[in-house]
Amino acid sequence: MAKHDKPESFVTEITPRSQDFSRWYLDVVRRAELADYSPVKGCMVIRPYGYAIWEMVQQALDKEIKRTGHVNAYFPLFIPNSLLTKEAEHVEGFSPQVAYVTHGGGEELEEKLVVRPTSEAIIGTMYASWVQSWRDLPILINQWANVVRWEKKTYPFLRTTEFLWQEGHTAHETAEEAEAETQLALDMYATLCEQILAVPVMKGQKTESEKFAGALRTYSIEALMGDGRALQAGTSHNLGQNFAKAFDITFQARDKSVQHVWGTSWGVTTRLIGAVIMVHGDDSGLVLPPAIAPYQVVIVPIGRENWRETVLPKAKALRDELVEAGIRVHIEERDERPGWKFAEWEMRGVPLRLEIGPKDIEKSQVMLARRDTREKLPTPMDGLAANVRQLLDAIQKNLLERALAFRAEHTQRAGDYEAFTAAMDGRPGFVISPWCGDADCEAQIKTETQATIRNIPFGGATPQGTCVRCEKPAVAEAWFAKSY
Amino acid sequence: MAKHDKPESFVTEITPRSQDFSRWYLDVVRRAELADYSPVKGCMVIRPYGYAIWEMVQQALDKEIKRTGHVNAYFPLFIPNSLLTKEAEHVEGFSPQVAYVTHGGGEELEEKLVVRPTSEAIIGTMYASWVQSWRDLPILINQWANVVRWEKKTYPFLRTTEFLWQEGHTAHETAEEAEAETQLALDMYATLCEQILAVPVMKGQKTESEKFAGALRTYSIEALMGDGRALQAGTSHNLGQNFAKAFDITFQARDKSVQHVWGTSWGVTTRLIGAVIMVHGDDSGLVLPPAIAPYQVVIVPIGRENWRETVLPKAKALRDELVEAGIRVHIEERDERPGWKFAEWEMRGVPLRLEIGPKDIEKSQVMLARRDTREKLPTPMDGLAANVRQLLDAIQKNLLERALAFRAEHTQRAGDYEAFTAAMDGRPGFVISPWCGDADCEAQIKTETQATIRNIPFGGATPQGTCVRCEKPAVAEAWFAKSY
Repeated sequence: MAKHDKPESFVTEITPRSQDFSRWYLDVVRRAELADYSPVKGCMVIRPYGYAIWEMVQQALDKEIKRTGHVNAYFPLFIPNSLLTKEAEHVEGFSPQVAYVTHGGGEELEEKLVVRPTSEAIIGTMYASWVQSWRDLPILINQWANVVRWEKKTYPFLRTTEFLWQEGHTAHETAEEAEAETQLALDMYATLCEQILAVPVMKGQKTESEKFAGALRTYSIEALMGDGRALQAGTSHNLGQNFAKAFDITFQARDKSVQHVWGTSWGVTTRLIGAVIMVHGDDSGLVLPPAIAPYQVVIVPIGRENWRETVLPKAKALRDELVEAGIRVHIEERDERPGWKFAEWEMRGVPLRLEIGPKDIEKSQVMLARRDTREKLPTPMDGLAANVRQLLDAIQKNLLERALAFRAEHTQRAGDYEAFTAAMDGRPGFVISPWCGDADCEAQIKTETQATIRNIPFGGATPQGTCVRCEKPAVAEAWFAKSY
Repeated sequence: MAKHDKPESFVTEITPRSQDFSRWYLDVVRRAELADYSPVKGCMVIRPYGYAIWEMVQQALDKEIKRTGHVNAYFPLFIPNSLLTKEAEHVEGFSPQVAYVTHGGGEELEEKLVVRPTSEAIIGTMYASWVQSWRDLPILINQWANVVRWEKKTYPFLRTTEFLWQEGHTAHETAEEAEAETQLALDMYATLCEQILAVPVMKGQKTESEKFAGALRTYSIEALMGDGRALQAGTSHNLGQNFAKAFDITFQARDKSVQHVWGTSWGVTTRLIGAVIMVHGDDSGLVLPPAIAPYQVVIVPIGRENWRETVLPKAKALRDELVEAGIRVHIEERDERPGWKFAEWEMRGVPLRLEIGPKDIEKSQVMLARRDTREKLPTPMDGLAANVRQLLDAIQKNLLERALAFRAEHTQRAGDYEAFTAAMDGRPGFVISPWCGDADCEAQIKTETQATIRNIPFGGATPQGTCVRCEKPAVAEAWFAKSY
């Protein structure tokens, strides 16, 4: 059995990031054991180390979702096909990507069931029965769930047929409240990305051709990956009364009239893990922000053969001290060379490595090594937890600053099409240009340059002059990029 | 629109538990807003109040799962049909209940996909590629997920086509380790039920005819519901090498030989919420153990029209004090009569009601009302949090004791078939009888009395004499019951 011939575990070289970004990404995903391919076309397995990151993201976001008055619930995985088709734009947008269950319990079903690509249809149906009066509003419900969208070309975390996400679905008395909710959700996402994932994002509105199928308006947060491509990191939709009308979600208003609710929906997915990898990673592998690192510190005991007797007990005492202070710690106890262990945990992106050997113990100190800057800092054991906490905070801050600087370096303006096409030759990052608001013009730009409008940032200056591509007057300053 | 004619919210009478247990159960599930029927046949919606209970159960169990060395991961929802069929007993057991995806992305699939009824097949396939050497073992992975098993007759929480659960899947070097793991999981479940849900359970082994399809041995925890029917509350399977052989999960052993791993799998589901309802509930509705109550205390301000000015500020101050002490509190602020509010929160099972009015404020006290005993206890505001904590602990303890007493009253022995059939006329609870170990005899008993062997408890006395039904010598003392 050939598979048993290879060594049990080892750090295989990963493709340098600068050489081939896409291969580097796939190497990191596999070698850091974040995810693996599965025998199901287009579906991946999220391995424990990757899933632990997702749990960190979930915890941080779920806390905010609840703090802002939302509650979690769970709706069925299956949606009768007749419900999906009730909102015309919605079904048109999603039906090409849908998976159908046609047989169950040994029989062909009378009506085929859609495996949810998103849950507006099933949730809207329930809201119609739950809402009677304005007193029942707002409904502020979130769901953590798996969804399925058939994809031809998949990429771990970024685009898979099945993925995990949360989807908020709210119903409101007024248009103003729905708009405020849409913005609130977007703000939650932006804060999550910047404060927890250390990924800077640009908030703005999607164009008509890029908005959610069935929405009035879609807002997004857009992040810049290390290769200069943009990634849509989260979306928040103001649904207006579209779904309320399609699903008959009505209420008796304060003035006794019967009205349709105003809806929103918003979601972020496991794709955020892909963003973390592609924003912070380097040639040695993953670099994790401390806020979502399953292990914030890895302790590597160093010493001669008898390190288990001479060094390990002290390493464990330090581990306990750090854990007591609320820090997530792993001790590397395997029988491997220290160099191997260093490379292994660098590849896995642990923010801080703590090296400890017999001489350190003599001097009552340890060596701390930062993953982000690779600085090595001799640090006294006395007051260790406070120093580690401070360093973790510094790393978190540095990662965001570094990403902000990268984005600034890779954001430029282009006033005319010659400059625009020249800039888009390669992967320049964001290019800000005036745009006429015309969908055909947007489509032409995409065909000619592969660049799409990521969004129209909020609060942008009123554009002067004409569209970057055509002669029509500009209506907005749009952020263009090639994207995932 | 007729739906707007009815009042916005009200406590409708629920069917008395003694009159019709099954209708009472369905009434409680609907009126307490734990779950609702959905337009998808056999699938329910878990509403926020019900889902919050599930989150409490998840938190408690997930902590134990991790404390005992397991990690979470996520495997695909879909399983290629060819994988499901690899283990002969497994496919035979599950195929009648399976839902098939046959179309995706606008095309008919080459191979139909099974919507996971359980994940041994897909996880086993992945383990085969991950395990090389004994150094890779054990693998201790858990997954929180939705699963689908087609059901003809469904019942909220207890039996639905889609349900939520966790499924542990482990792989070990030796048979002994796998057996220890199977027992460890069962012990976690028993502790969860007894300490957190206040639901006493009997641990034991399932008979051959009731074991998991593909397992070597299945262990279960069995609980007794308020109507005298038993409920299987969790199962843990020793898979032996069955799945390892079917999926070729091999490793190089310490002696360099190539061997198959030893497997286990174990799960509990949202059915546990059904157990909580049916064990603790009464004619007024739900009774929640404090450990899983979304709100442990509901504060009801009482007073004349100006209660929002005179009482509410103090109520909020007390709420903050209790929240500070780690207690989950809700203030009932709606404009309804106090009597309505009392009934509403009794129906929703909140363990403690805190009443506060102008006179209470004068006397610097509040009135606490226990949901379980209906005792009303005037309690000084001074030191309130400590008193509340103590009462919550007392309620938690009392619910378990009450359930234990109920089970003791509803457990009897029957040595011969006349006594057995007489006992089984009605819903007697558990009947303990000697059994020959023969599956045909077991099937006959079921046909004749509707009773099944729930399990053979661990550590039972060696039985004397003959089987309760036939002439063969008894091999075990079995616990029989009619069950859900």
